[in-house]
Amino acid sequence: MALASWRSPLARALHHNRSLTYSRYVQLATVRLNGQPANRTIVFRGFLNDTNQLRFITDSRSDKAEQVSQQPWGEACWYFPNTREQFRLLGILTIVSAAHADPALVKAQQLQWQELSDTARLQFAWSHPGKPRSDSDRFDPPSPDPVEPLPNFCLLLLDPIQVDHLELRGEPQNRHIYQRESSTESHEEWSVRSVNP
Amino acid sequence: MALASWRSPLARALHHNRSLTYSRYVQLATVRLNGQPANRTIVFRGFLNDTNQLRFITDSRSDKAEQVSQQPWGEACWYFPNTREQFRLLGILTIVSAAHADPALVKAQQLQWQELSDTARLQFAWSHPGKPRSDSDRFDPPSPDPVEPLPNFCLLLLDPIQVDHLELRGEPQNRHIYQRESSTESHEEWSVRSVNP
Repeated sequence: MALASWRSPLARALHHNRSLTYSRYVQLATVRLNGQPANRTIVFRGFLNDTNQLRFITDSRSDKAEQVSQQPWGEACWYFPNTREQFRLLGILTIVSAAHADPALVKAQQLQWQELSDTARLQFAWSHPGKPRSDSDRFDPPSPDPVEPLPNFCLLLLDPIQVDHLELRGEPQNRHIYQRESSTESHEEWSVRSVNP
Repeated sequence: MALASWRSPLARALHHNRSLTYSRYVQLATVRLNGQPANRTIVFRGFLNDTNQLRFITDSRSDKAEQVSQQPWGEACWYFPNTREQFRLLGILTIVSAAHADPALVKAQQLQWQELSDTARLQFAWSHPGKPRSDSDRFDPPSPDPVEPLPNFCLLLLDPIQVDHLELRGEPQNRHIYQRESSTESHEEWSVRSVNP
């Protein structure tokens, strides 16, 4: 698939902010089961193969996994400190566990697990996130298998349909909104317009 | 009003990250009119007087002003890079324009305007945010009055009812959830519990 037009400014931002580990951290907004918004920091893991879908990881026991199954829309807000620019990526979230119906996505989920550091993998062997902490909880479990994902490990995909790019450094500021106009398996059509910041 | 118990770890985080301008930037999630989540970076401006409400600013012409009038719940996600910790503050948002019914809040809105830099005030004299940009749009308007706010200037308040504090540096990690149990005009009762990260 051809890269969407917003991929080039995003790649540039990632490059110019690569000295900061946390320039790969984004804040993901979802909607809670009761209709209230939720927001948390997650780590960008790259794009899915040759698509425009962003890869993240999550635990099937987390609140966001439950939220996404009810309301699959999410907006990632990504601020780059060095270049003072922000990308807001609105799209559909997909949670990929080993039980997902699409074998290509299950393959991607396995590869994602294998790419993780030991430390990152270990978190999926921890006690149930968000539950009351007790002394019996296990935070020093044995290292999980580096090849076969633990059952609660999920790949989280964000498939953007709108990207709002704001450059605070402009004169006065620049803001572009990219919109996906159509898409097929192999091609996406994106429009871009300049709007007031 | 007594400071809520989460104010002390938050003050510590602000102190230890004060070298980074952007440690005062937070991502605010709201819900769009169509039920999808929205997320953007905003600047923390301090607390409202002796309350536990966080102050931000917004333009009455922005999407978030419209979103808040329909769904007043918001969650701010605040990541502190130096200390590797995150606060998620869930609460009710209030938009305070000059027309607000509470004179004390209108007073706070005026003071907020007067505290802003000239550059920050100027943005409220810009053309309608989010509308298509055209050459006739004004981004070099005369400086607005530093005393009397422009009519589209609003104070934005977040009154938290839950604060989720995650410390990535812990062994393994520490996570505390603060919950507001009750509140009167002069007092708030907060509980805190330790949960699995």
